[in-house]
Amino acid sequence: MLAEFTIFPIGKDVSLSKYVARSLKLIDESGLPYRINPMGTVVEGSWDDIMELIKKCHMAILEDTERVSTSVKIDDRKGITNALDSKIKSVEEKVGRELRK
Amino acid sequence: MLAEFTIFPIGKDVSLSKYVARSLKLIDESGLPYRINPMGTVVEGSWDDIMELIKKCHMAILEDTERVSTSVKIDDRKGITNALDSKIKSVEEKVGRELRK
Amino acid sequence: MLAEFTIFPIGKDVSLSKYVARSLKLIDESGLPYRINPMGTVVEGSWDDIMELIKKCHMAILEDTERVSTSVKIDDRKGITNALDSKIKSVEEKVGRELRK
Amino acid sequence: MLAEFTIFPIGKDVSLSKYVARSLKLIDESGLPYRINPMGTVVEGSWDDIMELIKKCHMAILEDTERVSTSVKIDDRKGITNALDSKIKSVEEKVGRELRK
Repeated sequence: MLAEFTIFPIGKDVSLSKYVARSLKLIDESGLPYRINPMGTVVEGSWDDIMELIKKCHMAILEDTERVSTSVKIDDRKGITNALDSKIKSVEEKVGRELRK
Repeated sequence: MLAEFTIFPIGKDVSLSKYVARSLKLIDESGLPYRINPMGTVVEGSWDDIMELIKKCHMAILEDTERVSTSVKIDDRKGITNALDSKIKSVEEKVGRELRK
Repeated sequence: MLAEFTIFPIGKDVSLSKYVARSLKLIDESGLPYRINPMGTVVEGSWDDIMELIKKCHMAILEDTERVSTSVKIDDRKGITNALDSKIKSVEEKVGRELRK
Repeated sequence: MLAEFTIFPIGKDVSLSKYVARSLKLIDESGLPYRINPMGTVVEGSWDDIMELIKKCHMAILEDTERVSTSVKIDDRKGITNALDSKIKSVEEKVGRELRK
């Protein structure tokens, strides 16, 4: 299962990088494979492992803020493993060249 | 905490209402307060209660389909209860009239 | 075509109702049919009409704020009109009773 | 302005890579800077340029399918250019090392 998520406080700083960095520490410690992009982080794993991680990040950001916005987009396809790399490879094959990640 | 979610199979039927109906049964049984809209369902509750429910719905749709797309948008604001109604009321007060739900 | 959208400033107020109210004025003036819910607004119309409206709302919120987050979810199904009501009706028929909106 | 978007048909193939490849051709031709990730594509540009591109991709996928789901997440911050790279760099500085993209 792949999940992309984005977590940030509302009504706090305009710059969000310190909150993203705090989440990234927890993501890294989780041991789940992940890729970051300019709008969120994509992780791969089981439902329970991913949701435990997202809860941890959400609660960490909520600790010293009043309101937190979290969005999660899940793509769950049976029998697929290593989707983090294989989805992009499959598109690159069809496009006929490497794409900028 | 409020969460809006949408769950549907990819590569199966064009019409999705039977899958939405299946989710709605589980949402109803959960006892959590909810409102449906043309693009998803909004529920109110704790992180654990809401995520257990969304997992149940996701797994039910995945049972007889191959790929499922699930998106969740969370709005978590400290010290707020009954946000399901109070958020809209607060906007209606500022707009000065009732709005179509 | 149906589109649900949510627009709010980042790094400004914790309460967002005044920004939602500002958007709602523009939505109302657009003449497009819409329904509000606790997490966003769903409108029905053509791609161009809907996107012109969302741009107007986004730019209005950006006027006196530094950073704006806007999300749009589109459901475009050929040959369907009045989806704003018919999607929910179709689910209610399958569930066998009226649902809370 | 940054926008991440995802476009796919509902009720058609389980595999979506050929649709993603079709969008990528149009994204490439647009000349806008972009990065792909396993869950979507992030582009940088003005509101009008980005929305014209997303419309083009959406309409291309709709051509030979019956129903299309499109989601767009916008992050618009005043006075920021080259956000495609600078957002990740700013997080990497705070984390203290390079992150997997």
